[in-house]
Amino acid sequence: MTVIKWNVRAGTYYDSVVLMQLQRGLLELPGVLDAGVVMATQANRDLLATNNLLPDSISANPDDLLIVVKADTENSATDAIGKVDELLARRKSSSVSQDFRPRSLSAAVKQLPEANWVLISVPGRYAAGVAREALELGKHVFLYSDNVSLEDEIALKKSAREKGLLVMGPDCGTAIINGIGLGFANRVRRGSIGIVGASGTGTQAVTAHIHNLGSGISHAIGTGGRDLKSDVGAITAQQALDVLARDDDTKVIVLISKPPSPDIATSLISAAQKTGKPIVIYFIGYPPPARKIGNLRFAISLSEAAEISVGELEDSRIPQSSNSRFVRGLFSGGTLAYETLLGLQASISPIYSNAPITTYQLLEDPLHSRAHTIIDLGDEFFMVGRLHPMIDNDLRIRRMKQEAADEQVGMILFDVVLGEGSHINPAGELIPVIKEIRETRTGELEFVAIVIGTDDDPQNLQSQIDQLKDGGMTVFRTATEAVEHISLRFGSNKKSEFTPVNLDQLKQPLAAINVGLESFYDSLISQGAQAVHVEWRPPAGGNEKLASLLTRMKK
Amino acid sequence: MTVIKWNVRAGTYYDSVVLMQLQRGLLELPGVLDAGVVMATQANRDLLATNNLLPDSISANPDDLLIVVKADTENSATDAIGKVDELLARRKSSSVSQDFRPRSLSAAVKQLPEANWVLISVPGRYAAGVAREALELGKHVFLYSDNVSLEDEIALKKSAREKGLLVMGPDCGTAIINGIGLGFANRVRRGSIGIVGASGTGTQAVTAHIHNLGSGISHAIGTGGRDLKSDVGAITAQQALDVLARDDDTKVIVLISKPPSPDIATSLISAAQKTGKPIVIYFIGYPPPARKIGNLRFAISLSEAAEISVGELEDSRIPQSSNSRFVRGLFSGGTLAYETLLGLQASISPIYSNAPITTYQLLEDPLHSRAHTIIDLGDEFFMVGRLHPMIDNDLRIRRMKQEAADEQVGMILFDVVLGEGSHINPAGELIPVIKEIRETRTGELEFVAIVIGTDDDPQNLQSQIDQLKDGGMTVFRTATEAVEHISLRFGSNKKSEFTPVNLDQLKQPLAAINVGLESFYDSLISQGAQAVHVEWRPPAGGNEKLASLLTRMKK
Repeated sequence: MTVIKWNVRAGTYYDSVVLMQLQRGLLELPGVLDAGVVMATQANRDLLATNNLLPDSISANPDDLLIVVKADTENSATDAIGKVDELLARRKSSSVSQDFRPRSLSAAVKQLPEANWVLISVPGRYAAGVAREALELGKHVFLYSDNVSLEDEIALKKSAREKGLLVMGPDCGTAIINGIGLGFANRVRRGSIGIVGASGTGTQAVTAHIHNLGSGISHAIGTGGRDLKSDVGAITAQQALDVLARDDDTKVIVLISKPPSPDIATSLISAAQKTGKPIVIYFIGYPPPARKIGNLRFAISLSEAAEISVGELEDSRIPQSSNSRFVRGLFSGGTLAYETLLGLQASISPIYSNAPITTYQLLEDPLHSRAHTIIDLGDEFFMVGRLHPMIDNDLRIRRMKQEAADEQVGMILFDVVLGEGSHINPAGELIPVIKEIRETRTGELEFVAIVIGTDDDPQNLQSQIDQLKDGGMTVFRTATEAVEHISLRFGSNKKSEFTPVNLDQLKQPLAAINVGLESFYDSLISQGAQAVHVEWRPPAGGNEKLASLLTRMKK
Repeated sequence: MTVIKWNVRAGTYYDSVVLMQLQRGLLELPGVLDAGVVMATQANRDLLATNNLLPDSISANPDDLLIVVKADTENSATDAIGKVDELLARRKSSSVSQDFRPRSLSAAVKQLPEANWVLISVPGRYAAGVAREALELGKHVFLYSDNVSLEDEIALKKSAREKGLLVMGPDCGTAIINGIGLGFANRVRRGSIGIVGASGTGTQAVTAHIHNLGSGISHAIGTGGRDLKSDVGAITAQQALDVLARDDDTKVIVLISKPPSPDIATSLISAAQKTGKPIVIYFIGYPPPARKIGNLRFAISLSEAAEISVGELEDSRIPQSSNSRFVRGLFSGGTLAYETLLGLQASISPIYSNAPITTYQLLEDPLHSRAHTIIDLGDEFFMVGRLHPMIDNDLRIRRMKQEAADEQVGMILFDVVLGEGSHINPAGELIPVIKEIRETRTGELEFVAIVIGTDDDPQNLQSQIDQLKDGGMTVFRTATEAVEHISLRFGSNKKSEFTPVNLDQLKQPLAAINVGLESFYDSLISQGAQAVHVEWRPPAGGNEKLASLLTRMKK
């Protein structure tokens, strides 16, 4: 026979270390078979139920602490519940000693004025408040806490951006600043690879692998998992990229994230291109547009991201963007159009197509291009009673003239697919038209051709290429090469508008204030950093009613 | 001043070559400035309007032929329209001579009984009927025509699968059978690389690139763009993969497609694994699960797919699948969970997660796994008032026991993330639990650990690895390696159920019957293939009312 006893404590705050230690203490008591010590959220109640630790008769609110003991006898269970206060008190006395422990952030700052960093790991509902205070004190924030609202994240990051401060997080597990790991971090040697990580274990896996390959890390800046979603707009990632780009000791940057929102991916890739520094990008699950575009390299796994970053990367030329000019791609080959769109969408925005990859790229009227546009002229829409554009160039020639008449167009891209079945001399038919366009067109207009063919094809591959080149066209043999060319020319060139993060602060010996998990303080000290731990308690000891009363009284 | 005149011809069929030649003929007449000859679909009417060739007063049905002439004088326009019949007649007499031109498919078969292939490029609304007839005659179909309904495609392919015949298409631009290009195809040398292509120019780009790299093609089998969507279920791609796998002269297979439906991607990847042959996969825009999984290699561009296939590929072991057993991943690291899920989703199905990549992977109750499951135990859902699983293993230990109690579970996967902030001896805490599980568990249960750490980490990396290995665990250092291990063990092992395509037919000198575009016939002949062109006309000369009357009379 087993007996379950429980105890509900309303409206009092305990940190999660205390709860874990209480649970372990209860499990060590005689006769105790299992124990659960949790905040009584629905998720936690379901977990208790899964472990057969939740009798139906328990009622508790999500803010209540729920202590459940399963024992072999009634007496063992009662005794265990009776020991809860004693176990909680024992925990107190075992805490790491510190001569003087400040109870507030402002007091901690007075004690360690050189601290530029505040680590926050208090429960989510309090975390935004502490972060706000830290920003007001002019400190960078490492926000480990989760369960912070999106609204709070946006407000904190906007405020930080104005001040030139970083908010890493919320739910930021990992950072390494100037050789000191914050939160969860592997011990890695210093080196010249910088990391911008929107994922905690992603950053750990990459930094550890870089170390294991013999290289090292300058700084690893975390952003939190939501930073690269449209709502937040990659504020922290953009700041981090900017400060690492300005750091001469950072030679290569690795950018890791779960799949960003497409608009964010494009803007970050553009920002990365602008740095001119070798940057390795791994957006997990985002199809890489190419292995390499200018200074950018795209990885397809965490380990590969590390390997590429360690490999010698040469500086590449900074893209020569030509603003407010568009590329129009007029393809006979559907797959070539698709692969080109896939490659371009990473660095060019907005881009439309009648064969879109995502719905927001849909060109509703295939007869009229908008902004950057890739058209598949072999689409069924065009094909009723008409020969395929590989055989009959009429449709494409008309469309070329139409695109050239648009002064916003700076490049016309097209494919020339040779081989059996295709037109016997496509270059011969296209070149006079392009010449005619060039004679009447004012302003720069580049023609780029992707030629697919072999030296056995009936059209004579070399003669087709020569004709196109003689006609002034830029000729590529694969869509991938054309994508790189176009990305470098049209990649977005928007100036980022934010107060730059102070690079010197990143490079000073790390000094930090820790609010929340004491183990993070221990870890800082063991790494040789200066740190102060705040003996933080929630307002009014976690009693929400009292806290809200106090807030109103202050006003 | 310009004058526009037009002529509408209702219910008569002309093939698209005739229409193109009529338009060109009109443009050469004196005084003619522009001309349009189109079937009067909405798309074509809009195109005419874009070219200022569509006066408001024209009324025509989509099945009508619309002839528009723009000329400099009233007389020139009237004369041009008056020449339409003459121009149409001129075209007739210029057609390639052939001693005896059959007017039906069955007559053509009698003339060239060795023909195993029928090329169909008639207008979409007639194409399914011709294809059905070809299948009934026991012929493989190359279906170039577009605008064929999805229902027709499914019916044709199901019928073909039963008979061991291939339906390449509809909208199949390219194939190379036994050295002869069908439709659009580059001239490439024979060789040992086989292609299964759901995209026309994709196949052209890859085969041309392979040729240019010095290698060659055994067969390139097209499928049409919709084949890899759920509705069609990759019928042709599966058949093609199967027949090329059985062909000893095909040493490497390249599989190219626009992004397939996720279920189709999984089933094709599984089928590819089963072949044991080196297979290069490029699903354009589908994030590659890894560079390499067993005998599979994943490319990220058309040119790379060609390059990898040409590179020497060694045979890999065929996966040892253990049916009806599941993997359960219990991760502390969210990104590691995500990268693992991303890798596994390619070859394991169904797979669920509380941090899904696509909505259909969502594990609605994170407390209970289903089939294959990857759990992020650091998700906010679990984190209220609880230490992170990197610090506190309690949640994971309980879940391990829960998973082990499920007899369907064949593998428990977990990560061990070392470093600052993490538990000081995770292996020491997990191993006794795993031992305990092993002692009570009947049936095979593999424990696989992904260890992230460095030799400077406070936990002692090597000791953690040694402990895990001594405890009987399989240990990997990256998620990618674990993904390969798991994919090979759990990859789907479903038997494909279809009548195999006759390999000998693929390897005989190509003989084909061509219905539709005459240029395809010319191309076959110029490649040295045997071919017969059918002088095809639609039923009742394209008059739909009469055709339907005739059909009813036959019954």
